[in-house]
Amino acid sequence: MELGVCYYPEQWPQAWWEDDAQRMVQMGIRYVRIAEFAWSRIEPRPGHFEWSWLDQAIETLHAAGLKVVMCTPTATPPKWLVDSDPTMLAVDASGQPRKFGSRRHYCFSSQSYRAQSARISLAVAERYGKHPAVAAWQTDNEYGCHLTVLSYSDAAQQAFRAWLQKRYGTVDALNTAWGNVFWSQEYASFDEIDAPVGTVTEANPAHRLDYRRFASDEVVAFNRIQTDILRAHSPGRDITHNFMGFFTEFDHHDVSQDLDVATHDSYPLGFTQDFFLSPDEKRRYARTGHPDIPAFHHDLYRGMCKGRWWVMEQQPGPVNWAQWNPAPLDGIVRLWTWQAFAHGAEVVSYFRWRQAPFAQEQMHAGLNRPDRTIDQGGLEATQVAQELKDLGANMPLAPMRTAQTAIVFDYPSIWMAQIQPQGADFNAMEITFRAYSALRAMGLDVDMVSSKADLSAYRMVVLPAHMREDAHLAKRLAESQAQVVLGPRSGAKNQALAFAAGMPPGAFAPLAGLQVQRVESLPPGVHDLVQWANGATSSNTHWREDVASQGATALASFADGKPAVLRNGNSWYSAGWPDAEGWNQLLGQVAQAAGLVTHTLPTDVRITRNGDCLFVQNFSSSPVEFSPSNSAHCLLGARELAPQGLAIWKLQASA
Amino acid sequence: MELGVCYYPEQWPQAWWEDDAQRMVQMGIRYVRIAEFAWSRIEPRPGHFEWSWLDQAIETLHAAGLKVVMCTPTATPPKWLVDSDPTMLAVDASGQPRKFGSRRHYCFSSQSYRAQSARISLAVAERYGKHPAVAAWQTDNEYGCHLTVLSYSDAAQQAFRAWLQKRYGTVDALNTAWGNVFWSQEYASFDEIDAPVGTVTEANPAHRLDYRRFASDEVVAFNRIQTDILRAHSPGRDITHNFMGFFTEFDHHDVSQDLDVATHDSYPLGFTQDFFLSPDEKRRYARTGHPDIPAFHHDLYRGMCKGRWWVMEQQPGPVNWAQWNPAPLDGIVRLWTWQAFAHGAEVVSYFRWRQAPFAQEQMHAGLNRPDRTIDQGGLEATQVAQELKDLGANMPLAPMRTAQTAIVFDYPSIWMAQIQPQGADFNAMEITFRAYSALRAMGLDVDMVSSKADLSAYRMVVLPAHMREDAHLAKRLAESQAQVVLGPRSGAKNQALAFAAGMPPGAFAPLAGLQVQRVESLPPGVHDLVQWANGATSSNTHWREDVASQGATALASFADGKPAVLRNGNSWYSAGWPDAEGWNQLLGQVAQAAGLVTHTLPTDVRITRNGDCLFVQNFSSSPVEFSPSNSAHCLLGARELAPQGLAIWKLQASA
Amino acid sequence: MELGVCYYPEQWPQAWWEDDAQRMVQMGIRYVRIAEFAWSRIEPRPGHFEWSWLDQAIETLHAAGLKVVMCTPTATPPKWLVDSDPTMLAVDASGQPRKFGSRRHYCFSSQSYRAQSARISLAVAERYGKHPAVAAWQTDNEYGCHLTVLSYSDAAQQAFRAWLQKRYGTVDALNTAWGNVFWSQEYASFDEIDAPVGTVTEANPAHRLDYRRFASDEVVAFNRIQTDILRAHSPGRDITHNFMGFFTEFDHHDVSQDLDVATHDSYPLGFTQDFFLSPDEKRRYARTGHPDIPAFHHDLYRGMCKGRWWVMEQQPGPVNWAQWNPAPLDGIVRLWTWQAFAHGAEVVSYFRWRQAPFAQEQMHAGLNRPDRTIDQGGLEATQVAQELKDLGANMPLAPMRTAQTAIVFDYPSIWMAQIQPQGADFNAMEITFRAYSALRAMGLDVDMVSSKADLSAYRMVVLPAHMREDAHLAKRLAESQAQVVLGPRSGAKNQALAFAAGMPPGAFAPLAGLQVQRVESLPPGVHDLVQWANGATSSNTHWREDVASQGATALASFADGKPAVLRNGNSWYSAGWPDAEGWNQLLGQVAQAAGLVTHTLPTDVRITRNGDCLFVQNFSSSPVEFSPSNSAHCLLGARELAPQGLAIWKLQASA
Ligand SMILES: [Zn+2]
Ligand SMILES: [Zn+2]
Ligand SMILES: [Zn+2]
Repeated sequence: MELGVCYYPEQWPQAWWEDDAQRMVQMGIRYVRIAEFAWSRIEPRPGHFEWSWLDQAIETLHAAGLKVVMCTPTATPPKWLVDSDPTMLAVDASGQPRKFGSRRHYCFSSQSYRAQSARISLAVAERYGKHPAVAAWQTDNEYGCHLTVLSYSDAAQQAFRAWLQKRYGTVDALNTAWGNVFWSQEYASFDEIDAPVGTVTEANPAHRLDYRRFASDEVVAFNRIQTDILRAHSPGRDITHNFMGFFTEFDHHDVSQDLDVATHDSYPLGFTQDFFLSPDEKRRYARTGHPDIPAFHHDLYRGMCKGRWWVMEQQPGPVNWAQWNPAPLDGIVRLWTWQAFAHGAEVVSYFRWRQAPFAQEQMHAGLNRPDRTIDQGGLEATQVAQELKDLGANMPLAPMRTAQTAIVFDYPSIWMAQIQPQGADFNAMEITFRAYSALRAMGLDVDMVSSKADLSAYRMVVLPAHMREDAHLAKRLAESQAQVVLGPRSGAKNQALAFAAGMPPGAFAPLAGLQVQRVESLPPGVHDLVQWANGATSSNTHWREDVASQGATALASFADGKPAVLRNGNSWYSAGWPDAEGWNQLLGQVAQAAGLVTHTLPTDVRITRNGDCLFVQNFSSSPVEFSPSNSAHCLLGARELAPQGLAIWKLQASA
Repeated sequence: MELGVCYYPEQWPQAWWEDDAQRMVQMGIRYVRIAEFAWSRIEPRPGHFEWSWLDQAIETLHAAGLKVVMCTPTATPPKWLVDSDPTMLAVDASGQPRKFGSRRHYCFSSQSYRAQSARISLAVAERYGKHPAVAAWQTDNEYGCHLTVLSYSDAAQQAFRAWLQKRYGTVDALNTAWGNVFWSQEYASFDEIDAPVGTVTEANPAHRLDYRRFASDEVVAFNRIQTDILRAHSPGRDITHNFMGFFTEFDHHDVSQDLDVATHDSYPLGFTQDFFLSPDEKRRYARTGHPDIPAFHHDLYRGMCKGRWWVMEQQPGPVNWAQWNPAPLDGIVRLWTWQAFAHGAEVVSYFRWRQAPFAQEQMHAGLNRPDRTIDQGGLEATQVAQELKDLGANMPLAPMRTAQTAIVFDYPSIWMAQIQPQGADFNAMEITFRAYSALRAMGLDVDMVSSKADLSAYRMVVLPAHMREDAHLAKRLAESQAQVVLGPRSGAKNQALAFAAGMPPGAFAPLAGLQVQRVESLPPGVHDLVQWANGATSSNTHWREDVASQGATALASFADGKPAVLRNGNSWYSAGWPDAEGWNQLLGQVAQAAGLVTHTLPTDVRITRNGDCLFVQNFSSSPVEFSPSNSAHCLLGARELAPQGLAIWKLQASA
Repeated sequence: MELGVCYYPEQWPQAWWEDDAQRMVQMGIRYVRIAEFAWSRIEPRPGHFEWSWLDQAIETLHAAGLKVVMCTPTATPPKWLVDSDPTMLAVDASGQPRKFGSRRHYCFSSQSYRAQSARISLAVAERYGKHPAVAAWQTDNEYGCHLTVLSYSDAAQQAFRAWLQKRYGTVDALNTAWGNVFWSQEYASFDEIDAPVGTVTEANPAHRLDYRRFASDEVVAFNRIQTDILRAHSPGRDITHNFMGFFTEFDHHDVSQDLDVATHDSYPLGFTQDFFLSPDEKRRYARTGHPDIPAFHHDLYRGMCKGRWWVMEQQPGPVNWAQWNPAPLDGIVRLWTWQAFAHGAEVVSYFRWRQAPFAQEQMHAGLNRPDRTIDQGGLEATQVAQELKDLGANMPLAPMRTAQTAIVFDYPSIWMAQIQPQGADFNAMEITFRAYSALRAMGLDVDMVSSKADLSAYRMVVLPAHMREDAHLAKRLAESQAQVVLGPRSGAKNQALAFAAGMPPGAFAPLAGLQVQRVESLPPGVHDLVQWANGATSSNTHWREDVASQGATALASFADGKPAVLRNGNSWYSAGWPDAEGWNQLLGQVAQAAGLVTHTLPTDVRITRNGDCLFVQNFSSSPVEFSPSNSAHCLLGARELAPQGLAIWKLQASA
């Protein structure tokens, strides 16, 4: 549990660097990420490298005892490079190149840019790979930001054809898999196949899904070129990439295969404003963020690299990029930081040391203001560092315990739902988040894992949106002892986004004991009442399925008597999109069947177990009271928590 | 009154075909539409035809006693054809070609594609034109779907210039008609005239209207090439095209001149979600559809080909293409089918036999599920077939009686309102539908006819949105005995979308006995109270006119005393956009003047007279009671109708 | 105080001209603007001029005793000219040329079009510059209409590079000013710099701001070519341009430097529907317009050319171009006309004499209907002319008195807020308007002035949105005796849209006695309560700042105790976006401190002082009563004002 910060020495007078380093140390910061946007300063002219300033910056940090997270600067190729080869630019859906003047102006499929990316990465790795201050590497920056994964360049289309040939072998196999007999879409050769863009109406969903898969694979390949270079030239250092929250343009699990540590960029207020929350939630959580948004990502990225993860960029104040950019309430930056540690972060690194007074992100707060005075975020980071120091040996050092509940998160399933929502607001990320949030609201810890993860240790496994049929996963779930929860559309589609064999839920059918015979998406305002066997009622919106039981029994029914929730032994199936009470009913009953202890927490209070400690977090606007068992011992805070308050309890080792 | 189905043998194993045919027959199906998207299977390589599979499919259907509706496959040219001549593609408003990868990827003005279209149509017609199973032909599929009528290709612009030259003779005549002196828009030659697209602000409305007319004429010409071939090579078979609901990109009356039977594709739930209904209506009618949407189209297409019409595609379950896609309530598919027969359909053909498990429409239900089991739509089709059989000789065989009420539906008037709405929500289709719905809610049968139709038999003729000045129509209306209802903006514009001579309502002024001196569109929330002479009140929204009487007397007034509704002998004029109660007041009084018997029907119940039968349809969610005169005899159902219920009554022949 | 009208003789039969002129004179009209869209009639073929019709039109008007406002026809180059050089067209953000077929189809940076513009301007000026009827000139028409200032043509990009070189001297200076070290945006030469368009995410705000400045300067340069020609060839005539309301694409103060009289086009109903008002305001003011929209523009344009200004186009009835186009209530056109005179207009000229029956603006009312009958606007113009005549010598002839309250209006500050809103609804025009409206609602007269204006005579100076740091202005304000009101974000940015030195409010900090340490934008629904020291409460939305006092004292606080409004001697600062009550509290207290007399006016009633007269205007829907001091004498109207009513009071000279 250490703190870090993102720092841009090139943006400040060299005379300030030593003071900055000293103040970082005093604040309790240990890691400093640098240089991820510095290409134009490292290589101001083609082949002409200016290392001295960077040497000096690293030395300054090193001298102060700070560790450096070094970066490849490939997210911002300089103008001279773009002008030398404009074909390196990505091309948008209307055929326009996405031009120089901001960042991420490159196409992952450009072979020339891949070569340039390797060249600069090698140069940086050779110079600093064995420097004692360099503790870790970050490749590039936020792959996918500004929707930059999908490109329709000539290079991308050529690569797509080769990718298809490799996947399908023959064009006949492709025609069959995609169902190209429909609408005379059959191809006679791979060369005839274009990117699925600019069509009169929607392109074949199989075509679109394969383009998504291909584009994701291009990110993996691009990243691997860099990780191969870094491993060769900087032995013993961790390699990471900073993933961005709620991004699903590529498969983060796949990219993580080449990383040692997964890191993510956590902007709770920006995410609250820019994603699927309701207007009322956006208002209510404007200055705290939805309590489960940071935790959702912590648990997701903990599942990427065998449990090793950081927050690489932690929001320290208002940001500049959301539709609206409110300021965090005092105390929330501290709470977010502790929340990350509670969920197992090795390092929480703030973005950024000092607010830049110029250019695109000048309205993005830092730990310090542009005038070098400390900002609220800096005060709270200082407080956390002091608390970490005070707690010292009392704090858990053991690795995060595996939770007893898992959510299976599957990027291809997310893509499937994006391509084929069937209702304008069917959002697979949202339903996953709602299920996660319901689990968290009842006090359960959650692991977010890929479909290939070992699930044997879990008592409860939830698949809120696993639309992709997965026979191997179905088999492992059937063999496990866990209670398994399947959301609507589970297993509905095969690998080509066609109907799963034998109708949905496809390979999950034996587990679920039912067949889905019809589905419907529901316009706003259509709320179907759900009557639970135990007398409770909830409401169903967005989506509903007509299910024929093949052994499963109904736990809840719609008003017309058709089943809304079914159970088949250890398997539970939701034939619709539950509201919060629906999730609470379903997951509460599952938890009981799984022998898990749930809690009735005050509204917007969350608890997280890490090792033998329990972290209690009050995201509400009211003071609350909460304590675990009588035998627990309070390490920090108290039973009473003010708004934005935190308590850490040491539990009995056996608790 | 027969049932049909759309079938795609090329999408299923040949081993299933015979079973499919047998099950169709058992279900009571008589017509099978095939091959409208099968070009890539018919001609997989340029000039290389594969007829054997299609021969076999037709034989299989024929052997089972089914009749075939054969199609030209021109809605989906194969990839090899597009690659051989990319200029055949339509071009969108931003200048981008609309590419291969879905359907309707062609420009109606492409001479090369017209030749290809003729070539493949001839090949199919020569092979199957005289086959005993082939009972009818469909040209292409849903002209205009995905907004494909307007193209800005070079071919289209060239053709437009020739079209203008033919229409105007001299460019001076065009300049005068369009008012090109305005903003120095004058042209020196036809060659200078481009499509009205990409201009700095809106192009001249006359220019836009002529481009709409031209584009409509291109559809007519394209279609006629095929009908000429089919007539020559398949004598005695009916030729049709399947029009799509609420589409107004081209003049369906004009295309129908070349057809024997008009068919349309009826998707009540999709239309309810995607068109102008209010959010509350979209919620309320989510699973039944608005009761008047199917009927509106039935009555419209009955007016195309001397009363001969089919439903070519009947929604059998949830569809895939609307913003939201709810499932029809059980019983509604049966009710829709009977509703079509009530309105005079010769055939109701379901789309489609079996839900495809792949490609773009995999979420579109069929009569059967992808796993070959029967779906709810199939059950209801079976029920209708049985009911038809049981009713047998008791049912009317006479052609549909002409209604006593007509709505004049005029495509150019719709275009005029689209080009010049003057208020963001002035929708000529909506106001026409609202008038239609008000007539239906009071139990009146309605014919929807073109402005050239014989109106002499009607007692009441309603022009809800006849914006186009039409002296010939005005004359015939004046000479008729009918009560004539004119909606706002009637006759306001001449053929070039300029002010009608002598101010609105132009040629209708003598009839209406008034002059419109000022109009205004009203932002949301502006509701002008309308006080009726009989004490009733209603509300006016969207649009209002200041009218000076030239003989007409006010039946209702706005709060400032200006006339809201006026009567001049047999002519009635609405100086605004009425709400439902306003239409009810106006049309109720007109009906009374016309000597028509209206009914006070329960909410969402509709009645339709066909021959000597009266069809009572309950679209509401409550049981209702309704019976016609005591002398009527109930053939099907009863006085009590459950939700989605139907009753058929035999009236006295003279009733 | 004279009336004018816009007239298009080329659009009407020559036989009507003399009658039109006679009727204008009878109506009391004195000025007639002509020929601003007549290029295709003046020069129907390249180099072939047709003067005779225009000679005749001018003679007809002259003979009737009317004065002519002559125009350069450069807003509508004819088709032959565009075809001869398509590079003259502007290019939009997607790279598409903005084509012929409406108006304003040219790029301000096109050197070839500048030459054509000069050529035709010279031709017209030489022919009519010394004609006795020609009293004034208008250049072009509504620069910026249809968003035509920003063009991304090659010509524009070339000119931008030259403009940058002139501004910065060296590319290093530019890199520093723009902060191009951020994201490796550094340039090695001016030739590398493109327009800030088509970038992956937002371009550097400094880059964008300079492109806005450049584009504005191009308008100034384009206009000056014409004014130079007109001054040389038409001595003694006033030169003007008709600015359009709420347009901020270029700096109207800069263009006005080359004009004698500022004129603007006043469309109160269109502006009410199309700009930032709430849906409730759009409904409420649908038929009157918001009372402060015309006045805001009158006061703004009075500040352009030493107090000389006209309304060049006055809305006379419904227009055609807003989202919705309601009709003005009877009496409102008269009230608008008098409101303009009250605010100091020399001439109010109606657009247009007669409604055109054809082309794009056929739904735009005139003083007369297309059928040559007089419309409501004509009746009300006639009434005003009669009232002016009747009042005669009693009316003030002195130039408008300088108000005691000024608002500083700064186009570059508006651009800054557009480029960097930081919250989706931060609209600098809106907050300026809200402050203006609050001042007007308390009966204060307001001058809207540029930041360079002489402020010494004011008792109160309000900067609602002066985001641009301005040390010279700060110094003058500090030296003045005026109470100074600073809105949120005042002085926050330097000339390159980077943080002002020493944090916001930058150069205004000594004046305001505070430092802004953090800002936040607030999503819809977040309303922070503001508690005033005097016990009042108001509400803060949209924007909030955390302010550290450096001498200022809080007059109002947020719920958490942080200051919401602060005072530092004569300076007042709003640390947020006030609601109407917030502005009322703040400006009321400031007015009191300034010794200004405020009024408690009935809702939607406004008063305007001009010379020794007070104009009372009732924009409400209720009759109201208002009278000034007992010594005042009513020249027109009475203490009781009906809706749309007006009263003119003669005050004691010393009042
Ligand atoms: Zn939702
Ligand atoms: Zn409506
Ligand atoms: Zn606002």
